[in-house]
Amino acid sequence: MIDESFANSRAASAVAALVLVLGVLAAASAVARPVTVADLLASSTPQDWRKPDPENTLYLQLPAGRLVIELAPRVAPLHVANIKALARAHYFDGLAVVRVQDNYVVQWADPDHHRPVPQGVSLVAAEFDAEKSAYPRFEPVPDRDVYAPEVGFLDGFPAARDPHTHAVWLVHCYGMVGVGRDDPPESDGTEMYAVIGHAPRQIDRNVALVGRVLKGIEFFSTLPRGSGEMGFYVAPEPPVPIISMKIAADVPEAERTPLEVLRTESAVFRAVLDQRRNRRESWFKFNPGHIELCNIPLPVRSIPAGH
Amino acid sequence: MIDESFANSRAASAVAALVLVLGVLAAASAVARPVTVADLLASSTPQDWRKPDPENTLYLQLPAGRLVIELAPRVAPLHVANIKALARAHYFDGLAVVRVQDNYVVQWADPDHHRPVPQGVSLVAAEFDAEKSAYPRFEPVPDRDVYAPEVGFLDGFPAARDPHTHAVWLVHCYGMVGVGRDDPPESDGTEMYAVIGHAPRQIDRNVALVGRVLKGIEFFSTLPRGSGEMGFYVAPEPPVPIISMKIAADVPEAERTPLEVLRTESAVFRAVLDQRRNRRESWFKFNPGHIELCNIPLPVRSIPAGH
Repeated sequence: MIDESFANSRAASAVAALVLVLGVLAAASAVARPVTVADLLASSTPQDWRKPDPENTLYLQLPAGRLVIELAPRVAPLHVANIKALARAHYFDGLAVVRVQDNYVVQWADPDHHRPVPQGVSLVAAEFDAEKSAYPRFEPVPDRDVYAPEVGFLDGFPAARDPHTHAVWLVHCYGMVGVGRDDPPESDGTEMYAVIGHAPRQIDRNVALVGRVLKGIEFFSTLPRGSGEMGFYVAPEPPVPIISMKIAADVPEAERTPLEVLRTESAVFRAVLDQRRNRRESWFKFNPGHIELCNIPLPVRSIPAGH
Repeated sequence: MIDESFANSRAASAVAALVLVLGVLAAASAVARPVTVADLLASSTPQDWRKPDPENTLYLQLPAGRLVIELAPRVAPLHVANIKALARAHYFDGLAVVRVQDNYVVQWADPDHHRPVPQGVSLVAAEFDAEKSAYPRFEPVPDRDVYAPEVGFLDGFPAARDPHTHAVWLVHCYGMVGVGRDDPPESDGTEMYAVIGHAPRQIDRNVALVGRVLKGIEFFSTLPRGSGEMGFYVAPEPPVPIISMKIAADVPEAERTPLEVLRTESAVFRAVLDQRRNRRESWFKFNPGHIELCNIPLPVRSIPAGH
């Protein structure tokens, strides 16, 4: 089977400019070798990548390793403020992954509902949609969608919008992180989840999505599934401990996980989309001709030390 | 978060007829409690369920447990015949899971390419599409799709078709099982894979899909991811042993895993689809109004001993 993976592989050379993207396309065409995503990333410039803001990046430490989560403060400001306050109060440190439902979500929270919620954190209004002012920031893709009139990206996250109502919202692709809630629409951020299965798009606009896992999702996706209803762990299954959930800015620089994310507004990213839409590799006998939003790769790479 | 899971939960009572499905809807409406999938399954009759043919069911035994795979002999007859011949020759017994790529596939094969392929098994023609004669068996759903003109079910498996060419094919939803291949379109079945992530629909019509995992997918989805390219295990990561891959019919009846699958042509199944499309539970503040093919649940239940 063909490789669908390339994330986290730093291109050997990243000095080319947009003209080189086109150059790569031309060269590949000349030698009849189809352009790969790796070729496109190798043609990217440093300006095509952005460094997630440490002030809006979470490090979730499990026994198996660190997950890096990029928050979306412009999309869900109230929930992101709560989550950051919770992290700074060490609220999640020593709590647990309480639910792992196959092909759905991992959820972490206070399994005993005993830990007091720190001052300044309370139920906040639903942030299912972003503010209307986000609408012009939305970057559409031309592909169809089952659930939304238009799909694309907002602040680097997979998103959708409705041109009639000017609503814009993040969507539940693999690795997206949200805030659980009970029946009322409000939530406080003390119950968080990440998608580890086929995109459950039916819950779009029903929960506040607050970011996505940039690195380490496999520490969630390989966890034992809970045998209780909805995948909750039940005795004698031990909940998986959350060693800590910290804000990257609060971690000494030498202990951070430096990452870069390809800009969704870059020409390289649009070239990646086209490559994924129209598969020219010889392995492909049928060209899909389309790409579904949640199948679009969002390249992330490590920054080597000293950069 | 709301429950999206119900598979494998045997309804307490399964004696009602279609009239009862409607009865359930009416009753729920009278008490203003929305119908759940569990309600619908409880209203099903024994005739709404089918028992997969043991002659076309695989038991894949991993150290952690047994996966049950239903084959699709009418869709990919050449590959299914090969796979059954391989199983009966004990070809896969003692081989290994060689690749686990996060959000993509688990693949099992001969890691050393040393084991001789049994007589009677050879490369067979591509079965990316089913025979055209399958077209009338296709059961469409009214929902949109990103990749195909029409989606629905074929022989109980998620499928798509093109009304212009009368092509019909199985699609890569979570849990679907296919046959890996190299660049030529032919394959022999000695390299198999299962989808453990967001549906990689871009490879539809590019490989022979041969069935789906009915039970035990978590034994695949929780496996450690391989650190090699494309998720292949590389030393010192030990490949996960395949203890055996057998045909259910070859296993003594007392050692089988008796399962029933809800018929996709049943009225109950159509009611389940409607329930999933239009979410009336109070938790849902925004009704999706659509359902994507790979988000449609395909209920499977255990048959209690003695039935």
